[in-house]
This record gives sequence, C-alpha cells and structure tokens, in this order.
Amino acid sequence: MSHVSRCEVTIEWGDCDPARIVFYPNYFAWFDRGSHHLLDALGLGHDTLIEHYGVVGVPIAEASARFLVPSEYRQKIALESRIESWAGRRFTILHQGFRDGTLLLEGREVRFFGVPHPEQRGRLKAVPIPPDIIARFEEDVR
Amino acid sequence: MSHVSRCEVTIEWGDCDPARIVFYPNYFAWFDRGSHHLLDALGLGHDTLIEHYGVVGVPIAEASARFLVPSEYRQKIALESRIESWAGRRFTILHQGFRDGTLLLEGREVRFFGVPHPEQRGRLKAVPIPPDIIARFEEDVR
Amino acid sequence: MSHVSRCEVTIEWGDCDPARIVFYPNYFAWFDRGSHHLLDALGLGHDTLIEHYGVVGVPIAEASARFLVPSEYRQKIALESRIESWAGRRFTILHQGFRDGTLLLEGREVRFFGVPHPEQRGRLKAVPIPPDIIARFEEDVR
Amino acid sequence: MSHVSRCEVTIEWGDCDPARIVFYPNYFAWFDRGSHHLLDALGLGHDTLIEHYGVVGVPIAEASARFLVPSEYRQKIALESRIESWAGRRFTILHQGFRDGTLLLEGREVRFFGVPHPEQRGRLKAVPIPPDIIARFEEDVR
Repeated sequence: MSHVSRCEVTIEWGDCDPARIVFYPNYFAWFDRGSHHLLDALGLGHDTLIEHYGVVGVPIAEASARFLVPSEYRQKIALESRIESWAGRRFTILHQGFRDGTLLLEGREVRFFGVPHPEQRGRLKAVPIPPDIIARFEEDVR
Repeated sequence: MSHVSRCEVTIEWGDCDPARIVFYPNYFAWFDRGSHHLLDALGLGHDTLIEHYGVVGVPIAEASARFLVPSEYRQKIALESRIESWAGRRFTILHQGFRDGTLLLEGREVRFFGVPHPEQRGRLKAVPIPPDIIARFEEDVR
Repeated sequence: MSHVSRCEVTIEWGDCDPARIVFYPNYFAWFDRGSHHLLDALGLGHDTLIEHYGVVGVPIAEASARFLVPSEYRQKIALESRIESWAGRRFTILHQGFRDGTLLLEGREVRFFGVPHPEQRGRLKAVPIPPDIIARFEEDVR
Repeated sequence: MSHVSRCEVTIEWGDCDPARIVFYPNYFAWFDRGSHHLLDALGLGHDTLIEHYGVVGVPIAEASARFLVPSEYRQKIALESRIESWAGRRFTILHQGFRDGTLLLEGREVRFFGVPHPEQRGRLKAVPIPPDIIARFEEDVR
C-alpha cells in the first residue's frame, strides 16, 4: 500500500451552512490540503519539484467526491490521502474521511506535473511523470 | 432542453491561490450557487420544497468536475446550470463554465430531496422525486 | 490574566492569494474559531448558553485587526484568544498570533449574548451579561 | 466626495453559517473585492501600480468593521467603497453596505503602497503615496 498522509479535520462553525452541516466545497479544500501534505511527505513538495524536475505546479485536472455521512460543527474527520494510481501524464490521489471507523466521504483528485506552456502564457502543460518518481512509488506499494 | 440558469462569475483576487489561478474548491461553491439559482428558477426553492413536499433540503450525494482551462483574477466565467437527468431518488445538475465560447470547466452535482431521517437525528433520507416535478421537467425538455 | 485558549494554525496553499501571503479575511475566520474554542473552554458553549441562559447565539458587533507580519504557505501561527473586557452588554475577545515569539497580528472581536428580538424576526437582541459569568471571569483574572 | 465604487453582493447559501446569517469573515472578502474594484476604477490597478510606480502590491495594515444588521441567504447588499483619507504612507478605504437605504455594516481597511523590502525577503515596505495620486484624489474630492 502506498504512503498514507493523515490529518485530522475539526469542523468549525464557519465550515457549516444553514443546514448545520459542512458546506460541501470545504471538503475539496481539505482534499487539496491533504494532497499538499502527501506530496510533501513523498519528497515532492513545490521546492523539490521545481529544483529537480522543472515542474512549477501540480495542477488539478479532475476532482470528485461521494458524500456518505454529513458532519456537523465540532465533529472530527480523520482524513487519509494516498496516491492511488499513475497513468500516463496523470496521477490520482484518493482521499477518505473517517469517524469512529465509519467512512464518511471519499474523493479523488486527478493531477499532473505542470511546466510552463510553450505557447500559451499563464497555462501549464503536463509532462510525463519522471521515471524515478514512478519507481519510488512502485517500491512503496510493493 | 431543460431550463438553463445562467450567472456570471467574476474572478476576484481572493478566489486565486499563489499559482495565480482560481483555487479549485471555489468552483464547487459556484456550482452550489448555480444549483440554488436553478432550483429557485424552477419553483423548487427551499420554501416551496418544505411547504409542498415536506422536503427540508436538497443535499449533495456526489460532486465532480473536469478543469480544462484555468481562470485568473479579473477574468469572467459564464456559468450555465441545468438539470441533466432524474434517476430514482436522485437527480444530476450539470454546470458548465464558458469564456468567449470556450468550455473552461464542467461539473456535476448529484442531489436528492431530503426529509428528516426517521431513526438518525440530524441525517436526511432521500424520498422519491415527486411525480409532478418529474412531469414538469419532462414537459420542459420536450 | 484571563483564561487563554491556544490553537496552532498552519497556513495552507488555499489560504494564500496571488501575493503568496494569507488572504486577510482568513484571519477573521481563525479569530471566529478561536472565540468558539475559548467560549467552549469557559463552559459557555452554544448548548450551555441556550440551556442555562436562553441565549441563542454570540453574535459579532465589531471586529478589527492589525497586521504586522505576513504569513506564507506552510508557516505556522500560534493563535491565543482571551476575553479582554466586559462592558455593559458587550465583551471583547482579544486574538494574538505569534511565530517564534514575534507578534504577527492582533485582532479584537466585540460580541454580545443574543436572545431572539421581540419585534424583528430573525434578529437578535443583546441581553446583559449574566452576573455569574462576570463573577466567574473576575475570579479568573484575579 | 471621492469616487465611489459600487457593487451588489447577493448572499449565497454557502456565505451563511448555522445561525442562518452571513459568516462575518465573508464581509472582509467583500471589502477586499470592493477595494480592488475601487483601485481599478481610480486607474490604480495592479498593472498600473507596477508599471508607473514600482509598487508591487497594496497590502493591508488594518481592517475593522461594525455590524449593525445581519443578512440572510438571498438578501442583497449594496456595497459602496471609497477612499476616506490619505495619511503619510497609508490610506483608508471606507466600505458601507446598505439595503433599502438602511446602513447594515461599515468597515475600514488601512492599506499602503508596497515595494519589496530591501532586507527581508518576501516582505513589503510602505512607500510615500506618490504626489500625483494625492493630487488627483484632492481634485476628485473638491
């Protein structure tokens, strides 16, 4: 199994909407946070990516989530983030939120390693995932 | 074609992250906004739902998005929201963002009509979509 | 000195704007969080307020902040929140953020104990701070 | 009277907290938006500031607000933003929110024109407000 990055999210008052549950876009902000922590833990933080691979960002191509159990103010969510797969120029990060062993929600982000687009200012272009990163990941999951 | 609810989103400074593009969870906040406006336009706002159907909310079950073109501070997005399908106790809202005729991003929310769960305090239970709503929708798409 | 509620804020990617520093409204979200934790720690959480005092909320009347040192992605802020003063129907919560002993920012929230307004639906009316709360606070600061 | 920048804020579902009113830090996000629109309207947008004055940002030094009347989902706020005063290296932007002619809230931001700090990486240093900007403002208010 791949490296798992864990963090605990405490639901704050301002995270909730008038239905008294988490306003759902906040879950994606927590996914983004989980991905940053995961990439840092894997030695793939922003600084390393730029220095070693010329990669200036890890933009998102797709994001999705299934919401099974809502959460309220003061409740806690144990969020687990891991790389689920690499495919071509993209990779998928799986995020799962638990409370007392129950799966509350599950999300996926598809991201890529971006370099400045040669023709379009301000856009990023996906590069192949560097082989040593794939190798490290495969060793990790063995 | 189903009723389309349109709104224009202007990207504000605070919507963007250090990569100088929209921090992606904000797109889901705009989807949520689009869904509320759409349901209002369809005569299915919160007040009507409670009064006519005993439905206390329209919770989200799933959300997803594909991001094709990033947007920066000061750019505008023409967001179109429409009901794409009804299936059993769930329905799907399609959101598409355009600029100058180019599709920038596309998202879907799967929602249901919720009534208080008979056994679990604070939870909602999906009810079948009321037939008159389906009928009105089918007429709409003819 | 009054009870101090402490929490550590880690600056996430999405907390920052294109200037690569915290988008300032987020500081107020952290102040709000600090106030909720403080009131909980003082035994003045929402449930207690309703049950013992009929108080349905602790709305904000004023908020302010001075920003001395900006913070970037991955930096941490040690946030301290405490009640600074009670005056009539209002009280002031002081929030201070530190890193390595340096004061980074300082904010104040003026709040009141709210009961439903007798004439205006949806509005809250300030009630005098219950004497036992003042007494407890004064003992606390002695 | 100084130039006034006006925008209409519609309160969205996700802007509100479990008390069913606007979560107050959102007001500061709207102030920030108002300030950006105001500076743009005054010909002091980011691009101009960099090009003509070497100013790389307009950071916030202080922010404050008084909240008089809460706002709920679907309500609208007419937000007016104007420069209230220039003083030394700082200037104050006044924001006022109205509905049906009633003042709902009032906020102030104290900002400065920032250039890269000569000694501290990532910090900005306030420069004197360029005299032609003051002159233009004084003409404006005459």
